[in-house]
Amino acid sequence: MDTATTTCSSVDLAALLSSSSNSTSSLAAATFLCSQFSNISNKLSDTTYAVDSTYLLFSAYLVFAMQLGFAMLCAGSVRAKNTMNIMLTNVLDAAAGAISYYLFGFAFAFGTPSNGFIGRHHSFFALSSYPERSGSDFSFFLYQWAFAIAAAGITSGSIAERTQFVAYLIYSTFLTGFVYPTVSHWFWSSDGWASASRSDNNLLFGSGAIDFAGSGVVHMVGGIAGLWGALVEGPRIGRFDRSGRSVALRGHSASLVVLGTFLLWFGWYGFNPGSFLTILKGYDKSRPYYGQWSAVGRTAVTTTLSGCTAALTTLFSKRLLAGHWNVIDVCNGLLGGFAAITSGCAVVEPWAAIVCGFVASWVLIGFNLLAKKLKYDDPLEAAQLHGGCGAWGLIFTGLFATKRYVNEVYTGDRPYGLLMGGGGKLLAAQIVQIIVIVGWVTVTMGPLFYGLHKMNLLRISAEDEMAGMDMTRHGGFAYAYNDEDDVSTKPWGHMAGRVEPTSRSSTPTPTLTV
Amino acid sequence: MDTATTTCSSVDLAALLSSSSNSTSSLAAATFLCSQFSNISNKLSDTTYAVDSTYLLFSAYLVFAMQLGFAMLCAGSVRAKNTMNIMLTNVLDAAAGAISYYLFGFAFAFGTPSNGFIGRHHSFFALSSYPERSGSDFSFFLYQWAFAIAAAGITSGSIAERTQFVAYLIYSTFLTGFVYPTVSHWFWSSDGWASASRSDNNLLFGSGAIDFAGSGVVHMVGGIAGLWGALVEGPRIGRFDRSGRSVALRGHSASLVVLGTFLLWFGWYGFNPGSFLTILKGYDKSRPYYGQWSAVGRTAVTTTLSGCTAALTTLFSKRLLAGHWNVIDVCNGLLGGFAAITSGCAVVEPWAAIVCGFVASWVLIGFNLLAKKLKYDDPLEAAQLHGGCGAWGLIFTGLFATKRYVNEVYTGDRPYGLLMGGGGKLLAAQIVQIIVIVGWVTVTMGPLFYGLHKMNLLRISAEDEMAGMDMTRHGGFAYAYNDEDDVSTKPWGHMAGRVEPTSRSSTPTPTLTV
Amino acid sequence: MDTATTTCSSVDLAALLSSSSNSTSSLAAATFLCSQFSNISNKLSDTTYAVDSTYLLFSAYLVFAMQLGFAMLCAGSVRAKNTMNIMLTNVLDAAAGAISYYLFGFAFAFGTPSNGFIGRHHSFFALSSYPERSGSDFSFFLYQWAFAIAAAGITSGSIAERTQFVAYLIYSTFLTGFVYPTVSHWFWSSDGWASASRSDNNLLFGSGAIDFAGSGVVHMVGGIAGLWGALVEGPRIGRFDRSGRSVALRGHSASLVVLGTFLLWFGWYGFNPGSFLTILKGYDKSRPYYGQWSAVGRTAVTTTLSGCTAALTTLFSKRLLAGHWNVIDVCNGLLGGFAAITSGCAVVEPWAAIVCGFVASWVLIGFNLLAKKLKYDDPLEAAQLHGGCGAWGLIFTGLFATKRYVNEVYTGDRPYGLLMGGGGKLLAAQIVQIIVIVGWVTVTMGPLFYGLHKMNLLRISAEDEMAGMDMTRHGGFAYAYNDEDDVSTKPWGHMAGRVEPTSRSSTPTPTLTV
Repeated sequence: MDTATTTCSSVDLAALLSSSSNSTSSLAAATFLCSQFSNISNKLSDTTYAVDSTYLLFSAYLVFAMQLGFAMLCAGSVRAKNTMNIMLTNVLDAAAGAISYYLFGFAFAFGTPSNGFIGRHHSFFALSSYPERSGSDFSFFLYQWAFAIAAAGITSGSIAERTQFVAYLIYSTFLTGFVYPTVSHWFWSSDGWASASRSDNNLLFGSGAIDFAGSGVVHMVGGIAGLWGALVEGPRIGRFDRSGRSVALRGHSASLVVLGTFLLWFGWYGFNPGSFLTILKGYDKSRPYYGQWSAVGRTAVTTTLSGCTAALTTLFSKRLLAGHWNVIDVCNGLLGGFAAITSGCAVVEPWAAIVCGFVASWVLIGFNLLAKKLKYDDPLEAAQLHGGCGAWGLIFTGLFATKRYVNEVYTGDRPYGLLMGGGGKLLAAQIVQIIVIVGWVTVTMGPLFYGLHKMNLLRISAEDEMAGMDMTRHGGFAYAYNDEDDVSTKPWGHMAGRVEPTSRSSTPTPTLTV
Repeated sequence: MDTATTTCSSVDLAALLSSSSNSTSSLAAATFLCSQFSNISNKLSDTTYAVDSTYLLFSAYLVFAMQLGFAMLCAGSVRAKNTMNIMLTNVLDAAAGAISYYLFGFAFAFGTPSNGFIGRHHSFFALSSYPERSGSDFSFFLYQWAFAIAAAGITSGSIAERTQFVAYLIYSTFLTGFVYPTVSHWFWSSDGWASASRSDNNLLFGSGAIDFAGSGVVHMVGGIAGLWGALVEGPRIGRFDRSGRSVALRGHSASLVVLGTFLLWFGWYGFNPGSFLTILKGYDKSRPYYGQWSAVGRTAVTTTLSGCTAALTTLFSKRLLAGHWNVIDVCNGLLGGFAAITSGCAVVEPWAAIVCGFVASWVLIGFNLLAKKLKYDDPLEAAQLHGGCGAWGLIFTGLFATKRYVNEVYTGDRPYGLLMGGGGKLLAAQIVQIIVIVGWVTVTMGPLFYGLHKMNLLRISAEDEMAGMDMTRHGGFAYAYNDEDDVSTKPWGHMAGRVEPTSRSSTPTPTLTV
Repeated sequence: MDTATTTCSSVDLAALLSSSSNSTSSLAAATFLCSQFSNISNKLSDTTYAVDSTYLLFSAYLVFAMQLGFAMLCAGSVRAKNTMNIMLTNVLDAAAGAISYYLFGFAFAFGTPSNGFIGRHHSFFALSSYPERSGSDFSFFLYQWAFAIAAAGITSGSIAERTQFVAYLIYSTFLTGFVYPTVSHWFWSSDGWASASRSDNNLLFGSGAIDFAGSGVVHMVGGIAGLWGALVEGPRIGRFDRSGRSVALRGHSASLVVLGTFLLWFGWYGFNPGSFLTILKGYDKSRPYYGQWSAVGRTAVTTTLSGCTAALTTLFSKRLLAGHWNVIDVCNGLLGGFAAITSGCAVVEPWAAIVCGFVASWVLIGFNLLAKKLKYDDPLEAAQLHGGCGAWGLIFTGLFATKRYVNEVYTGDRPYGLLMGGGGKLLAAQIVQIIVIVGWVTVTMGPLFYGLHKMNLLRISAEDEMAGMDMTRHGGFAYAYNDEDDVSTKPWGHMAGRVEPTSRSSTPTPTLTV
């Protein structure tokens, strides 16, 4: 292994120092010493890059694991007949998102220098001359890609079980490649007009909006997009009966829902603490044990506490309201707590995270009641959960962000939470963020969904919806627990003979059937 | 990026050195040099914190993933009708555990300074002035929380399929918030009376018990608690027939069992190697490549070998005993091997880990035979596996811990394994640990379960048990593979018409039904 | 925490420097300074080991997670009646592989010094005096073990649903313990005859084969082994009908297939970027932000882009060829893109990865058409996917490896990709690699499978194949969604009475039934 310093010989150095009134010798001593310091400095710089990159890459892998979580959560939440369809959309969020984010999404979001509205520097398109300019690296691209596909994943839940696959491909690419990158540019790029880390210090309300890991940028964008999709499509057949009463269209596997929820929880540790991007940074020389590593850990703790509080609140609230202990609702409550704390996780105290989660649970319950009243059908509660709890999260940050943490994480003396004595400027910026995200997603995704609708590209036919998309569009049903040739495991086999002999060719197959 | 050193100018430094008989100039040179060293030292300190925190945080995330593993293992091991119930308990282990461990559990365990029995320093309750005092940080809290919830998860397996949900909430909070923290204080806190890393060196038998990652502290605590719960409740209906013969009540999904087992294996790499808490620590300047990073890797290897040996031993043993190759038994054997090596993983040679796993497999088989004989019903074999193999693991460490590794990991010249020539003191401490854990969990959890039983809060009614808890308590069945409105996938649909028209409202739903 | 430097007193040092014409004093000053540098150097060395070990260990954990991915992918891709069987083989790949790789596989692969054909240094067998010699550590062993078991996992897919369990145990141990280690010695050991990082610089064609993370060493070895197994066994009953027409034998759960695919994707971030083994290494002092950390991130990006392109290409190609959007095919395409980029991931540009994935998709489609034509039955398409796309990946590297990346990753001025202007030497080495892997696996695994076949140890009986291996060999069916004692969830219960009363004792059980 190469080490930073060359060999230091005391005898040789002493000889130089002892004759140091001789200027040649003293220059040699000084050169030697400076070269040692330079080597050390280089090695320390390398170390910092390696540590921070390790931290960011593994955080990115965790965020990617959320896509698996979404896939399982969505699969379990829809009826069995649409499982293949929803899982395919989740795989494609990641796959199509990788190509569109590579080609232009990343440049729109972070291509700097740029204006405040959208990134555009040529070296970022298709990573064409990346990462020649210091400050970001491939690991940053990977991390941001994993975030971008999360937004599209949220939306796919809202419009599940009734959307044409081609519509899915179109909106997903548009969302990941343009709508989402633009929003992330506004709030996270060093050029963004509302960014709290704007490099020229010309901050919105002297503050900028603090959306640390994306309650607004990711969750609201995905949720509001889903809201428009689901509104334009209308409810699934049978979701509200003739008298307008809500009829639950249950998902087909609670196990998949819990699996997906836990995977999302796991991945959120990459999403929230990972959003620091680096970990090797001391905050305060008078307290040498205190630095970004501590803030990162605190962020993991606030995230945990908010989600857990929301889960417990939902558990007892739903017990009172519906009369039973419901694991699906608890999972959704948990995720609502996470979506809410995502904005302020780095700048609030752990006790405040409990407040955040408690309210988030009731925000979700409230929006769900409202959705029912308005006959709004969202199979994953995605608009309510990610849109509603995400918006609450932005407000929460404006109320509870502490002075010390805001100053450490965003540097400089700046506004903080209203209830913590920091005035109303941060809260104002947060409210502006809510408004512009709702507005921007509405003017981009609304017309898109409406246009697809008008072109008959959005909703599937009633026949297809009744039969399920897996049989009609995706080559077969997702499950085959009872093999035709295995009579011993099929209780009705001896009664009905070979039932459905034609189903063989219409069911999924892992082998090629071209 | 900020680097540790300021610019070093050879010419300037040479000028200072050449006139260094001049005392002002020599002071300037010395100040410059010392300031360089001070900067470097600060940066190296920051680096150590960042590296160790990264290591600990990602280890914590892996340990958290075990909760997902438990959820899937438990779900697959119970009958389909109780799937929602058991998964909800697993989600709540994590959620309720986070709140109780945050409020007081963590302070009971690690609130220092304290006495040897229980932690109590005020700054640890609700992390009220944490982490102002150096030595532990939020990442440590998160790591310990992930451990605490594992114990409750183990217990939930033992009492599955017949326990009232309210009983679950009560014992889980009590276990995570008080019983488990106390035990972890004894053996892991720097104040603990039996801790091998006690700060005042007043060690039990001059040794302290070595339970590196918790064969006793976590696995025995969870297993013994489960033992008392299952004993007080009695077996599930139908588990032993009228003649007293054992009747297997099979779990509903082997796929979930394997999924859960692999996830637990994955997470164990956070559990065991992660228990070093830090990785950046050199052991021996004469062998610069050798330090904690190597011990961490060795711990991952011993963990792997013990589990794998136990799996293979179980495979062949059960083939001989039961006549078939049983993946469920192999999974349990594997987990038994992991539970056993958890105590000694850091202080034994890889070959010894193979011995550990081999014996663990037979310990599990033996305790399972005993359980059958005693008509003890534990749906997850949790008491046998975590209690039995955990106890074997403590004894194993007393026999096989090597001198070198004990001295490196726990520092100082101290007793080690009996069979490695280290005398009987360590083994004595290990046996004391087994006794006090069994005793403590018995006097705390035994009365709790008995009290709940007497208050009719423990076991569900026979009717509910027959019908399954999901239908009666949790809002519906966990699965709906055959949609009513999808005749094409329901072979008996054309025979029986719309079967069970009422099931719609009684089955799980991802959408709100308040 | 210990820090690297002792206290530096400006006053004391100044006194030494000011009297430095006095030789005793100057020696003291020099000794002090050198001791500081020595401390710093030691600490930097420790830091490097800790950072690189952290990086490698967590990468190893990710690669291990691929085994879980394989298990779920395989389980979902076979019929329900063989689920227990295939999952058991996946657990045993890891377990038996750990023992055989520990005992001798690792020594065959990396036991150095050795000859070019096979490793053999005694200190590596059973890690007997490991890691006394610098250069590799336990984390390296763990990482290589996780790779070794992947190869056996690939093969198990090809021969699924018709192979005796004892045959499985034999070939798996042979492959993991001998066949695979030998190949990894040739291409990855510093002594390997075709290794691109051969320590004596006597490189094959002055280049050596570049198989960075194992398109050939892992994927082709597993795929070609599977090819021979599947060829010797012949197709599953019913896979081709009397007229020779291909009949899809669908897998039983698309959800498990997608779960497994995503887990493999997640794990691939350990597989490919992790193959750097270290991350703390600067490449270029003139660009201090540029080093191995950047190459690691770029490798994660090329991996992502190749897989995603292959997934999208497969989506649209199969839509054209088969008429529907097939998630199973998209998953296989994705994995084919990953298998292909695995060889060149570290030495190609991101745009080239898109080319790699595009072609990989068509390679897989082509080989699948060929397999159908030749009546070759491979339930997981493993030979086509890992063998075919793996071979394409080796050629791709010979065509597209860039000069700069090859020189950085493998050091020295050396041949690179033909299409990048680097001449044909690298391509020649890549083609040699394809030939020798096909040859070596053929002469070792071919006779093994043929011998097992001749001894009637390879294929199960037709009766067992029809009934499914789970019932006949593994103690019962993997699933029990409808409990006998739960009439309410069993629609046919009231029609047929207690169907199959004998099934209780023949179904899987999580409890011991010795």
